[in-house]
Amino acid sequence: MAHHELKELVYRANLDIVEAGLVELTWGNASAVDRDAGVFAIKPSGVDYDAMRPDDIPLVSIETGERVEGDLNPSSDTPTHRVLYQQFPSIGGVVHTHSDVAVSWAQAAEPIPCLGTTHADHFYGEVPVTRRMAEDEIQSDYEHNTGAVIVERFRDDDIAPAQVPGVLVAGHGPFTWGADVAHAVENAIVLESVAQKAMQTYTINPNAKPIDQTLLDKHYLRKHGENAYYGQER
Amino acid sequence: MAHHELKELVYRANLDIVEAGLVELTWGNASAVDRDAGVFAIKPSGVDYDAMRPDDIPLVSIETGERVEGDLNPSSDTPTHRVLYQQFPSIGGVVHTHSDVAVSWAQAAEPIPCLGTTHADHFYGEVPVTRRMAEDEIQSDYEHNTGAVIVERFRDDDIAPAQVPGVLVAGHGPFTWGADVAHAVENAIVLESVAQKAMQTYTINPNAKPIDQTLLDKHYLRKHGENAYYGQER
Amino acid sequence: MAHHELKELVYRANLDIVEAGLVELTWGNASAVDRDAGVFAIKPSGVDYDAMRPDDIPLVSIETGERVEGDLNPSSDTPTHRVLYQQFPSIGGVVHTHSDVAVSWAQAAEPIPCLGTTHADHFYGEVPVTRRMAEDEIQSDYEHNTGAVIVERFRDDDIAPAQVPGVLVAGHGPFTWGADVAHAVENAIVLESVAQKAMQTYTINPNAKPIDQTLLDKHYLRKHGENAYYGQER
Amino acid sequence: MAHHELKELVYRANLDIVEAGLVELTWGNASAVDRDAGVFAIKPSGVDYDAMRPDDIPLVSIETGERVEGDLNPSSDTPTHRVLYQQFPSIGGVVHTHSDVAVSWAQAAEPIPCLGTTHADHFYGEVPVTRRMAEDEIQSDYEHNTGAVIVERFRDDDIAPAQVPGVLVAGHGPFTWGADVAHAVENAIVLESVAQKAMQTYTINPNAKPIDQTLLDKHYLRKHGENAYYGQER
Repeated sequence: MAHHELKELVYRANLDIVEAGLVELTWGNASAVDRDAGVFAIKPSGVDYDAMRPDDIPLVSIETGERVEGDLNPSSDTPTHRVLYQQFPSIGGVVHTHSDVAVSWAQAAEPIPCLGTTHADHFYGEVPVTRRMAEDEIQSDYEHNTGAVIVERFRDDDIAPAQVPGVLVAGHGPFTWGADVAHAVENAIVLESVAQKAMQTYTINPNAKPIDQTLLDKHYLRKHGENAYYGQER
Repeated sequence: MAHHELKELVYRANLDIVEAGLVELTWGNASAVDRDAGVFAIKPSGVDYDAMRPDDIPLVSIETGERVEGDLNPSSDTPTHRVLYQQFPSIGGVVHTHSDVAVSWAQAAEPIPCLGTTHADHFYGEVPVTRRMAEDEIQSDYEHNTGAVIVERFRDDDIAPAQVPGVLVAGHGPFTWGADVAHAVENAIVLESVAQKAMQTYTINPNAKPIDQTLLDKHYLRKHGENAYYGQER
Repeated sequence: MAHHELKELVYRANLDIVEAGLVELTWGNASAVDRDAGVFAIKPSGVDYDAMRPDDIPLVSIETGERVEGDLNPSSDTPTHRVLYQQFPSIGGVVHTHSDVAVSWAQAAEPIPCLGTTHADHFYGEVPVTRRMAEDEIQSDYEHNTGAVIVERFRDDDIAPAQVPGVLVAGHGPFTWGADVAHAVENAIVLESVAQKAMQTYTINPNAKPIDQTLLDKHYLRKHGENAYYGQER
Repeated sequence: MAHHELKELVYRANLDIVEAGLVELTWGNASAVDRDAGVFAIKPSGVDYDAMRPDDIPLVSIETGERVEGDLNPSSDTPTHRVLYQQFPSIGGVVHTHSDVAVSWAQAAEPIPCLGTTHADHFYGEVPVTRRMAEDEIQSDYEHNTGAVIVERFRDDDIAPAQVPGVLVAGHGPFTWGADVAHAVENAIVLESVAQKAMQTYTINPNAKPIDQTLLDKHYLRKHGENAYYGQER
């Protein structure tokens, strides 16, 4: 993919998360990777969405983490995105927001159980939460280590990032991803919706139970994988 | 009714539920039946609302469940709609959404009690919730069986679908219906509003009580049935 | 005031409550009185706000409750408005909505305590709730009796309707009023806001306490009465 | 700064808080100070935002509290703003709103703990709440004393107003400030967001814990102070 196409995709994704109501002020960033070129494009740091243009999107090397194209500093969350691209080879785009209810679950340091089919259609099981980071992890290489605790959580619990395309960083907020950045955006929208519905479900019934594995399998697999039958021909 | 009129009605209803704020992404579908022709029109599966045109709406045979007109696959929820048309002869339209608070009640697996006159004006008693589906019901003919557990609930509890025009499928979300698809849409709006007010009522007062049967009768019957006196001449 | 002016005011007020987000579907009505002429103007029953024009607003006699001008049936809540005009001589307009959180308090059958200065600026003390209506009050002259239980509540508790310009009807929803219909609309907006803030206050702190009488006096009286000093010259 | 520029800034800030959804009716006011000239500009009292023009913004003397320019009375909250300008020399602008969830925390008389990085990016620790005001403080010089209890809270707890740019006045609502009025507006937006997320966090997990001091330091200091590395060159 040409670099200007990658920047255009990332530019568009950053506006999409604003339009979807997931971003206040400048609290959000989206990125997309070109694995052949070894770079990813990401929102510049602290720039207003209104003022941003596709050419403002910097490119960053996956290998070195250095900016290789563009005049503006990349998002301060760039090292987190980089770890995700390095450790999760199946993903093509990453989105980070401070969306309202997903952040509340992250602050509560609770995973979001799979309470219904809305969740099951997009996340194959609960949305995990990281452990709280240690002092030294915060004090040096903080944004890198944010990525590392995400990866640790998926490794330790043997979760496939392609099947559970998002996570809550404890005390911080959600990161989502997808095969491309458009799917990362979609998963950010779904995660906020699922977070809202889960909070309300427990408000209505504090003893609400996750759905059965059979129902989870049914909904996730009718939309994903080789036997999917949702949507038009694939 | 001509087929193009039926498709136009269904097209319009599918946009109306989006405009009413009941649908995120593609999570919703509306259908309408032509009983004389033995077909119903329903939203195509996984198609963006923006891209959809009236001619994209497929027609499905009530008897066989097969698509009889149109180039696109009908919604994956089509078998559920079909069971409702088969078993509830009074209904002319069906709406399914993942609207925010109605889904939360469905996930909580709790019926929505009739706590006030907003509810009583449109639903003649509590909005029921289905039982959870069994493994085999999920594994084969899942969408058909979703309709079957709805019908079972109305039969077992002797509820008239014309008087209680909606249901919560446990762990999933709401289905509503009406004499025509426009009323099914209206009932979807009402159900979400009633779900929200009920959740908040219990937040304010965990011991809140349903209204008396006398008040339920008064409100429901002043708007429905032969002695109705709400609105203009009928 | 000329009748067409009265209708225009009421027409405008009915649109204002929709624009303020207090009305879903046709769940709301506003009226204004001309005491010299012995009539009040009120929204027609079950008419869409979009289709309504000023000339559609019927006039009703305070004395007889009969429609004296206009082709459309007045709102089914007309007898409630009439009782309020008869029994509360200081009021010039009445608004009824099913606004989201005020209805939730009404369904909870709880008065809204004065928890802060937002409330105290507009309502001189808690917003009362009526008792539940008896069977015979519901079965005959229901809308008239709805007004009667409101009046009973203000009489029994010696509340001045000019100082507490609203009420919750248990199991139903809010009515507000004011010196004119524009103030009745404003009080409907305030009541919904106060209801929301009160619900959230108790969510944050179940032991939250009403503000002191001194602070209530200060805020209410700096905006109302002869020593008011809020706003420009009066 | 020329007086007309100061008025224009304040005019703009008052519209910005409306556009940000923090203001209902006329419940909000913003001001900005010109310390060289010894004056601050503030919203006029009880004037509709739609009708307001930059020339309507009155100027008030910091020293005397008297209006020194403009035809309209300044906001009734002017003495509170004045105390903040007198006692907090680092601030250049002040915003007061009755925003929904911040008011709810103020009514609950609870400080907002720092539960996550959204909070830590903007407020260096919990958002404090004042004590309730005494009878005599309410009965005379109420608005002045509102400022005094804010200042008392920051003095007693040794909080730096430049690092914690906002407060909740118990039973009333939030005041925020900043180096200039644009930052005061931004902090009002952040405070409402943080208030909402904190309320929801406790709804999800009543035992949620504030973030560690290390994480608070990291986030606050990466955006503020000499070692900041968020955004573009400074």
